[in-house]
Amino acid sequence: MSELISLGEGSGGRLTADLVASVIKNFAACDGQKGGCEDCTFIEGNLAVTTDGFTVSPRFFPGGDMGHLAVCGATNDLAVRGVRPQWLTLGMIIEEGLPRAELLRLVRSAARQCEVLGATLAAGDTKVVPHGACEGAFFNVTALGHAVTPRPLGMNRLRPGDALILSTTPGRHGAVIAALRYGLDRGGLESDCAALWPLLEPLLSLEGLRCMRDCTRGGLGTVLCEWAEAAGLGMEIEEERLAFHPSVAAICDILGFDPLYLASEGCALIACAPAETGNALARLRRHPLGRDAALIGTVTAEHAGLVGMKTRLGGSRIVDMPVGEILPRIC
Amino acid sequence: MSELISLGEGSGGRLTADLVASVIKNFAACDGQKGGCEDCTFIEGNLAVTTDGFTVSPRFFPGGDMGHLAVCGATNDLAVRGVRPQWLTLGMIIEEGLPRAELLRLVRSAARQCEVLGATLAAGDTKVVPHGACEGAFFNVTALGHAVTPRPLGMNRLRPGDALILSTTPGRHGAVIAALRYGLDRGGLESDCAALWPLLEPLLSLEGLRCMRDCTRGGLGTVLCEWAEAAGLGMEIEEERLAFHPSVAAICDILGFDPLYLASEGCALIACAPAETGNALARLRRHPLGRDAALIGTVTAEHAGLVGMKTRLGGSRIVDMPVGEILPRIC
Repeated sequence: MSELISLGEGSGGRLTADLVASVIKNFAACDGQKGGCEDCTFIEGNLAVTTDGFTVSPRFFPGGDMGHLAVCGATNDLAVRGVRPQWLTLGMIIEEGLPRAELLRLVRSAARQCEVLGATLAAGDTKVVPHGACEGAFFNVTALGHAVTPRPLGMNRLRPGDALILSTTPGRHGAVIAALRYGLDRGGLESDCAALWPLLEPLLSLEGLRCMRDCTRGGLGTVLCEWAEAAGLGMEIEEERLAFHPSVAAICDILGFDPLYLASEGCALIACAPAETGNALARLRRHPLGRDAALIGTVTAEHAGLVGMKTRLGGSRIVDMPVGEILPRIC
Repeated sequence: MSELISLGEGSGGRLTADLVASVIKNFAACDGQKGGCEDCTFIEGNLAVTTDGFTVSPRFFPGGDMGHLAVCGATNDLAVRGVRPQWLTLGMIIEEGLPRAELLRLVRSAARQCEVLGATLAAGDTKVVPHGACEGAFFNVTALGHAVTPRPLGMNRLRPGDALILSTTPGRHGAVIAALRYGLDRGGLESDCAALWPLLEPLLSLEGLRCMRDCTRGGLGTVLCEWAEAAGLGMEIEEERLAFHPSVAAICDILGFDPLYLASEGCALIACAPAETGNALARLRRHPLGRDAALIGTVTAEHAGLVGMKTRLGGSRIVDMPVGEILPRIC
């Protein structure tokens, strides 16, 4: 590892995993390490906690803003574990000179998402730093809640033959941020940024539900790689079943990005027993956020630890964990 | 209020209270508002949560560093409510180019304080932002734990005649940061930055214990003003009983600061029934952090809502809530 922290270590890929490991190993008895690296930790009974920092640039984007994103991003980490988001804390670091109206717009967006979730702001903190010491504002949200899933969910439940279902078309958040950052036409594309709990809750009663994950930093590709590694199984997806929004595809073509690694903030990957595929898809499609839910692949016993993609042309390619940075500060 | 956020709004005084109020009012049913503005919130039974951001500059100072401070600062907010710090989350925003060794030093300091407390890191998050987007690193710590106090503590328990006890000499953290910032001789002074739980836990069995608060941003003066306002009682302290470290006094003289408003990070104000004063002082003095504990004043029925100080010369002055900024980024 280099002596200086690099931007790529914030991307959500391999370098981020290494950075996080170098931090965690200093703490004794870290519960977060048990059971691989899921996005939230059960601290006591079925009470779970997760924390997330938000530095997205720009702070306002079509489909959301940093306040909206902060509540969705943090609570989605609970939702995918079958945990109802009930309380959250909001820490704000604000640059001197930030327009007050802008701060309050962000705060109101956060409050609106709390209302959607029926979650309560339990604690908050504000720090103001001198002009130049932080770029506008950074938020931190810690979210808490009780699991309501009748059975635990996690990567260790994955079985060969499981269906891999995507709740919506991926990569829209990353593509919108990229378009804004590089001054590209986004063709009406909006971020998919959304609170996933209302979409995912109806899946929890499915007996064959195994594991869910929101495809944030590092995108769908990274989630698949983490699942393959943690479960010691193969993940096989089919390019033909992966529907990207035309603008996501266009923005990626221009910038040379692989859309598999572009962040979504309102899209979940779901694994369930094959017999439940139809049920899961039907329940997802009943909710506006899941209208485009699709079966995209299968968990396999072969190619343990690897992710493969059948291409449209009938070939096959390995989907690797990205090492460094595609697009900084998407969340 | 001005259209732009000002540095003074981060000071912990009146402007911070206004900023926080403007944020909180957007959230429905915020538990944090119940029972005034204590530093942590009970979310369920005796489970409490608090959150705190850390932007201290410089990050390393005699007596501590930002990692040490982050764990102490957040968990002290629990300790003063009689809550044992059990779990915490650590969110890190890191500037590209920060020396890795420096980050790991901060992380190890945080881990060491977790060990002192027997607290577990439950969740973490890292974000890396481009060079210039944040100054070095900012931490956020959310801390959780169960109250072990046999009776609730809070400003609403304050009664006329209660003793006001200070656990150590105040203002050392703020004075050290000020000395470093302005290039002054600190005469061997170290920050008082410390985890207060081990010091305060033995007080919890005292029947007459009313209320405790750590004297962070805004210092002892701000805590006294908040208590007076929230309880609708007077607070009377005696200058003669307030022992400032000679270097704190000297640094304040040079800079024109009032040491009453300088931050401490390991000093608690404690109110208890007058009959328990001796017991409380004895228990505090048994711990190294409380060796210099002292009775500094009394809660009064007169002068409701105001803080008065009897001066050494026999006069009397009002201690006002500070409006704006004394020293930015002390925590």
